[in-house]
Amino acid sequence: MTDKKATLSIEGRADTIELPVRTGTLGPDVIDVASLTSKGVFTFDPGFTSTASCESKITFIDGNEGILLHRGYPINDLAQNTTYLETCYLLLNGELPNATEKTDFEDLISSHTMVNRSIEQFLSGFRHDAHPMSIMCGVVAAMSSFYHDSLDIADPHHRKVTAHRLIAKMPTLAAMCYKHYIGQPYMYPKNHMGYAENFLHMMFGTPCEEPNVNPVLAKAMDKLFILHADHEQNASTSTVRLAGSSGANPFSCIAAGIAALWGPSHGGANQAVLEMLNEIGDEKNIDAFVKRAKTKTTPSASWASVTAFTKILTPAPK
Amino acid sequence: MTDKKATLSIEGRADTIELPVRTGTLGPDVIDVASLTSKGVFTFDPGFTSTASCESKITFIDGNEGILLHRGYPINDLAQNTTYLETCYLLLNGELPNATEKTDFEDLISSHTMVNRSIEQFLSGFRHDAHPMSIMCGVVAAMSSFYHDSLDIADPHHRKVTAHRLIAKMPTLAAMCYKHYIGQPYMYPKNHMGYAENFLHMMFGTPCEEPNVNPVLAKAMDKLFILHADHEQNASTSTVRLAGSSGANPFSCIAAGIAALWGPSHGGANQAVLEMLNEIGDEKNIDAFVKRAKTKTTPSASWASVTAFTKILTPAPK
Amino acid sequence: MTDKKATLSIEGRADTIELPVRTGTLGPDVIDVASLTSKGVFTFDPGFTSTASCESKITFIDGNEGILLHRGYPINDLAQNTTYLETCYLLLNGELPNATEKTDFEDLISSHTMVNRSIEQFLSGFRHDAHPMSIMCGVVAAMSSFYHDSLDIADPHHRKVTAHRLIAKMPTLAAMCYKHYIGQPYMYPKNHMGYAENFLHMMFGTPCEEPNVNPVLAKAMDKLFILHADHEQNASTSTVRLAGSSGANPFSCIAAGIAALWGPSHGGANQAVLEMLNEIGDEKNIDAFVKRAKTKTTPSASWASVTAFTKILTPAPK
Amino acid sequence: MTDKKATLSIEGRADTIELPVRTGTLGPDVIDVASLTSKGVFTFDPGFTSTASCESKITFIDGNEGILLHRGYPINDLAQNTTYLETCYLLLNGELPNATEKTDFEDLISSHTMVNRSIEQFLSGFRHDAHPMSIMCGVVAAMSSFYHDSLDIADPHHRKVTAHRLIAKMPTLAAMCYKHYIGQPYMYPKNHMGYAENFLHMMFGTPCEEPNVNPVLAKAMDKLFILHADHEQNASTSTVRLAGSSGANPFSCIAAGIAALWGPSHGGANQAVLEMLNEIGDEKNIDAFVKRAKTKTTPSASWASVTAFTKILTPAPK
Amino acid sequence: MTDKKATLSIEGRADTIELPVRTGTLGPDVIDVASLTSKGVFTFDPGFTSTASCESKITFIDGNEGILLHRGYPINDLAQNTTYLETCYLLLNGELPNATEKTDFEDLISSHTMVNRSIEQFLSGFRHDAHPMSIMCGVVAAMSSFYHDSLDIADPHHRKVTAHRLIAKMPTLAAMCYKHYIGQPYMYPKNHMGYAENFLHMMFGTPCEEPNVNPVLAKAMDKLFILHADHEQNASTSTVRLAGSSGANPFSCIAAGIAALWGPSHGGANQAVLEMLNEIGDEKNIDAFVKRAKTKTTPSASWASVTAFTKILTPAPK
Amino acid sequence: MTDKKATLSIEGRADTIELPVRTGTLGPDVIDVASLTSKGVFTFDPGFTSTASCESKITFIDGNEGILLHRGYPINDLAQNTTYLETCYLLLNGELPNATEKTDFEDLISSHTMVNRSIEQFLSGFRHDAHPMSIMCGVVAAMSSFYHDSLDIADPHHRKVTAHRLIAKMPTLAAMCYKHYIGQPYMYPKNHMGYAENFLHMMFGTPCEEPNVNPVLAKAMDKLFILHADHEQNASTSTVRLAGSSGANPFSCIAAGIAALWGPSHGGANQAVLEMLNEIGDEKNIDAFVKRAKTKTTPSASWASVTAFTKILTPAPK
Repeated sequence: MTDKKATLSIEGRADTIELPVRTGTLGPDVIDVASLTSKGVFTFDPGFTSTASCESKITFIDGNEGILLHRGYPINDLAQNTTYLETCYLLLNGELPNATEKTDFEDLISSHTMVNRSIEQFLSGFRHDAHPMSIMCGVVAAMSSFYHDSLDIADPHHRKVTAHRLIAKMPTLAAMCYKHYIGQPYMYPKNHMGYAENFLHMMFGTPCEEPNVNPVLAKAMDKLFILHADHEQNASTSTVRLAGSSGANPFSCIAAGIAALWGPSHGGANQAVLEMLNEIGDEKNIDAFVKRAKTKTTPSASWASVTAFTKILTPAPK
Repeated sequence: MTDKKATLSIEGRADTIELPVRTGTLGPDVIDVASLTSKGVFTFDPGFTSTASCESKITFIDGNEGILLHRGYPINDLAQNTTYLETCYLLLNGELPNATEKTDFEDLISSHTMVNRSIEQFLSGFRHDAHPMSIMCGVVAAMSSFYHDSLDIADPHHRKVTAHRLIAKMPTLAAMCYKHYIGQPYMYPKNHMGYAENFLHMMFGTPCEEPNVNPVLAKAMDKLFILHADHEQNASTSTVRLAGSSGANPFSCIAAGIAALWGPSHGGANQAVLEMLNEIGDEKNIDAFVKRAKTKTTPSASWASVTAFTKILTPAPK
Repeated sequence: MTDKKATLSIEGRADTIELPVRTGTLGPDVIDVASLTSKGVFTFDPGFTSTASCESKITFIDGNEGILLHRGYPINDLAQNTTYLETCYLLLNGELPNATEKTDFEDLISSHTMVNRSIEQFLSGFRHDAHPMSIMCGVVAAMSSFYHDSLDIADPHHRKVTAHRLIAKMPTLAAMCYKHYIGQPYMYPKNHMGYAENFLHMMFGTPCEEPNVNPVLAKAMDKLFILHADHEQNASTSTVRLAGSSGANPFSCIAAGIAALWGPSHGGANQAVLEMLNEIGDEKNIDAFVKRAKTKTTPSASWASVTAFTKILTPAPK
Repeated sequence: MTDKKATLSIEGRADTIELPVRTGTLGPDVIDVASLTSKGVFTFDPGFTSTASCESKITFIDGNEGILLHRGYPINDLAQNTTYLETCYLLLNGELPNATEKTDFEDLISSHTMVNRSIEQFLSGFRHDAHPMSIMCGVVAAMSSFYHDSLDIADPHHRKVTAHRLIAKMPTLAAMCYKHYIGQPYMYPKNHMGYAENFLHMMFGTPCEEPNVNPVLAKAMDKLFILHADHEQNASTSTVRLAGSSGANPFSCIAAGIAALWGPSHGGANQAVLEMLNEIGDEKNIDAFVKRAKTKTTPSASWASVTAFTKILTPAPK
Repeated sequence: MTDKKATLSIEGRADTIELPVRTGTLGPDVIDVASLTSKGVFTFDPGFTSTASCESKITFIDGNEGILLHRGYPINDLAQNTTYLETCYLLLNGELPNATEKTDFEDLISSHTMVNRSIEQFLSGFRHDAHPMSIMCGVVAAMSSFYHDSLDIADPHHRKVTAHRLIAKMPTLAAMCYKHYIGQPYMYPKNHMGYAENFLHMMFGTPCEEPNVNPVLAKAMDKLFILHADHEQNASTSTVRLAGSSGANPFSCIAAGIAALWGPSHGGANQAVLEMLNEIGDEKNIDAFVKRAKTKTTPSASWASVTAFTKILTPAPK
Repeated sequence: MTDKKATLSIEGRADTIELPVRTGTLGPDVIDVASLTSKGVFTFDPGFTSTASCESKITFIDGNEGILLHRGYPINDLAQNTTYLETCYLLLNGELPNATEKTDFEDLISSHTMVNRSIEQFLSGFRHDAHPMSIMCGVVAAMSSFYHDSLDIADPHHRKVTAHRLIAKMPTLAAMCYKHYIGQPYMYPKNHMGYAENFLHMMFGTPCEEPNVNPVLAKAMDKLFILHADHEQNASTSTVRLAGSSGANPFSCIAAGIAALWGPSHGGANQAVLEMLNEIGDEKNIDAFVKRAKTKTTPSASWASVTAFTKILTPAPK
């Protein structure tokens, strides 16, 4: 992958410094500066805008071109042809699951959807009107205590189980935050439901009604999850990676990422999705919404998402 | 500060790129790479070991030489001649406080030592044997909910009040975590006590005894706080800065930093201090401990701390 | 409505005072004394037995004649031909609902049956053997806090929503009080059930059994609700009106009314109903009970209720 | 007391009705209309503005003249020469206490200041931002459950003990509501403190500081309590009396009164006092405040209070 | 039953003492020493290994011969032909129930399966990793408070109701302890399920899944309950009897027995059963397990159980 | 100690059985029957009235003669010349402590007086009117969970620490039960107070008053503790021993003993003491009470206690 070199000469310094250049199949040249510190030189990059800290084998994103690839698959292919859990499997394992792997993965995630009852205790410590991102950050951080003793961060299997737990429990926690806010009882996950269906059930279901999730809404929700599955090295991802670089507990690191995501200059896309969902409201409004979404200027951060979204929801000509 | 240039040439690329070089009064040359991305080039630096993301006007650290300067003052001068709160004032304001400013600052911090009663509710959700760093991370994240509505992150005064709250409440939270662990009642802060004295009171006092903190231990504790006041751009600090770069809530960002600090390859120095304190146990053991600390090989991460510590606690020849 | 006059002369006072007289289509003459205070005269009426404080367009009651009219409909017509919710609609709107209005109203009330989870917290503060009226009074008063900020007492729509909430949530609260007393888990309302059926389900159902409410008992319960829908200006109603006259929160005012209703010289009828229900126990006992109720001397306060009740439950001759 | 007669003739009615007139030593003539109902006539008086429902042996108030007498003592005499507890004793017993009676009464009230720990449980059910009047209403209503079983409302001694409990516990409850609001720990009453001093201690004291109540503020608070000790038959008092007329639990009836007091058209004076206290803030501001209070137009409802207040706080010429 | 005598002569004592001898239809001679104390003599029997304190009409056990009779029925007959509740009925009443009695008894036990909600409060006081026997002991002791006031220990009916409550609630409590340990929500009993099925549902069911108990496992569980229904006068039984001999509350006495059962030298058989169940895991493993159980040396204490168990589970030759 | 033999011959049995006889320095002959079971013979002794299960080196009691010796010291000597903690030391170690041992033991017990905060959680699960013996039984049983993991019942030091914990924590628990009953806050132990003084402080002190225990009452309480320190092998002691014989957790075994003590035919003496204390009420009543106690017939069970009590409290002639 690397066969080029860059040469750096600094004024008032006799020697020149040779640095390896990594050339990807996609994207710009990348100069490896890791060896600079041993030569008594640092680079300075406020906000790390020019500095990559890892090679991503997972995601390629080019916001300007509206390209978002996961493991090489264009996001709109994924959104049209897979479920969110299949996309998760792809991101985790590098390949889409076959039929058996898919079912096994769905069962695996289903078996981890519940959260320890103590989580209810945490939630009751939050004021009813606490910001949901504050609650998510605190609750996910608190979850680190439940799985810390049995966690060997150096063991790949342990790390994988942690990923499964996070995927499975996040909708449960998010729904609990919402129920705490509106003062309704928490709805337990229903393991026979799909991932997005279950999330909507836990969000909007009540013990007064039989479970009854609108399948169109569930499908749209699943698409939205796919669109947000990974966005490469943004502020929240970088925070998770940086916190995790010291070998810290993965739940805490995700909490750190949630903290970063909360910031108004980063998580806006996130809030926008919820507001989008809110705005759609009913199946009959989808077309109108998509039309409007296509014409209105959207913040660049979520451009890829919205572009892909319009492609998915526009019915293909028959 | 910058009057030199570096020149970068990349194999297979016709042009050369000129980059400004920043030369500090202390330390190595720093090449500003922020403009690289506009030329279609990235640097690659796993762990950010060669990349600085900010200019620190606060701290200069050179672990190899055992140098740690805060605002230009050597750490052992600070440890011998100031209190922890004076050092905090110095870090926040650039100058040590005069007598009036010192008293005002102490009163200010005293007035913020209590935490909302809901914090007890959070704590009761943690298992008795949860890791203290997990609890600290969760609780500090949760605190973000109490001050979010009234916080304008763009207002310097709001940011300063948040700093004061964090300095004031951290010992209270830490002591509550410990009391939760051992099943004892929480001890409220006593505003007439000094910062370190108060911390020890909240940690080891009980409602069965009159407050009675060993002044030698309190003084040693205060020195230990000074030694840990700032360590420049380590993993936890960088995590806080990165999370905060999106404008997120400061309590959440500090929680993110705590997550990073938890990691075994970073927070070791931290645990070492507690174990050191544990090991000293009694005033009469200090000399022996210092002698041993001087001779034994300590982990490099806490080298500066221990070097400075031995200087402080060794009685000056009379 | 008023075209007569009354003339009042007071010994030792030169002038006579002319007062308007209001003559209803039913009932005695009513002298309007509101202007007296401006003439330096007060009336004195301990217990307000001779003083009406409002014109009721809703209810006409004549206990001696066994007449109870709501919006002009005799209570036994209502009890035989309508449901409790239809009667509520009548009392609120002046007319019985048509089929659509009925369904809409039932759906509306169903959507308000749940109470905030914090209510469970209040209940747990009560001793298991606390008097149910004490609990109802405290809990309803506490509910005022949940809807106060969004309530504009001057807005007719807000007032109407509050009425709907009170109708919908009262059975839930009453059943929760009962469950608290016997130490069983609270049963959530089931929105597909009828009003009285739901109440009985929440009272006597358990999570150990499938919902299974005796329809005869549910129907009888519904009749009993109709019979207690309104009793004009008794002590509890007057208390609600008096408390409300200052613009206070409607939940608090209803709590005030519950306090008044608790008193032994007023709420006796209320307790009697519960005991009546208790005594009936099983479908097969209804005939015997009605026969006995017809012959036995009942306290005059609930005379209208029992008279109407016997008429309803006596099977019409085939 | 009654030796005059009033004669009432109603248009279209042959007979005239003779009614007794009660003439007080102070105030307007009062016509006893209790017998009207037996003649088939009602009076109509929305808001009961012209109708007294009892003879008050306790309080005479004439807002227009700025006169407020308790048991014949002008309020400003009471405020200048007695404590609030002496005034309570006066209201309850008809005479001011001698030295022994005063001490005994103070000891008696001190022994009832604590509230059952379950009250903390109720409070934790309220949202942090619940309106304090909502909390007071709910909590006082809830207290009815603690003393109901042992209460014989027909026993004068039981009624008196209830009055003592209400006087003693009300400041404790009010302070608990405030502490709940700001998230601070509840401060237990200190029995060696005076009534107003204790209230301020429970409101503003914390476990971080030794008890330290400003005596000037305590004295002013005590005066404010005196000024609000009784205001005759206003909406809240009438509500308490009406609710109580059915023999209901006295705590519930007071809760009913609190509901009435909450209303914006009645409890304004009440809020004004708290705001006044807030505004004074410091001893040095009293003179300025009094001066301003004298000149500014105050709402008529609290006129008597403020007039009396200025008389008390203006230092007598030496 | 007694027609023999034993004669005791003590060295240095002139008289001989005559003692009645009780001869059972099964088992060794039993000398009645109750009268010895009146002769100034005691017997000494550490651990009461030679001393019976009662005549058991219920159970005959001879561990060496592998015989265990309840009311004369061999345990393997009971295990093969009855349910656990039938065996309970037998132990309580002396005879197996007929069809009606069986149904009535099952309904009776079903109606007592729930426990007071306060029990959840107790459980939340236990650490997540508390030993289950510690929890059972504490919780059962605590239950004594719920039924003490209405309990007349001298009334046979009251005693019987207590037995029914204990049989009905014990599985509920045991399952709650388990759920507390793993942090899952408590599952309410389902009254339409069989005794053992219900226990397994409460143990391993979750609100995420429809109730779904493996009938083979439920049947095996029922057999295991039968095998442990009574073991005559072992340490725990004797503790219950001794504690009960003072007329103490039956729930407390059972708690005392649980304390004794906890001890490693007594409750081993009990733990062995759970481990056995754990080990079997799946229907298909039963044969292998039974074969192994037959050959391996098992602790003598549970010999009878395992012998009987192998007989039951070995399919009869067809 | 044993040099005599008893000879047992059973009708219809050829051989005679020889049994060793143990003769104490005090009390009746004791025949060792432990070997009987190996001869195929049992003794039968309902209530174990003739059977001792251990040799007590601690206590000799002869209720008929009013003799109660602990380690050879008459109880009235102990009550007059020692404190309760000295008597505990004597019972545990065989000898009274010297001055240093006494202080060390008092400090040791003081350091164990607090109980884990979770205990408050248990208590809150009990109804306010639960029987105190039920609460004590449940709470002590629950405490077994806190010390189980670190307890090696075979280690004499662990057993001793458990004894110290039980002595130290029992008054704290008893006082907490009482405070739970009356709804007052729990009072923490004060380590500078004596054992009985501390108990009375925790029982009757409140946070509203400075600690202020009547020293005469404290001294009397201490005597009462001495009188109840040990009563040899009564039902509760035997229950503790029997439960403990299986190696069970000591806290659970003491809970078992509390269950036995609750029984009306055993714990009567216990209740009598509390009522005695209640009756004395004030220092000035002691003489009269003692006089009355001397003349009135007391239940035989507590005879020794009351006899000793009168001897202690009667002032010696000067």
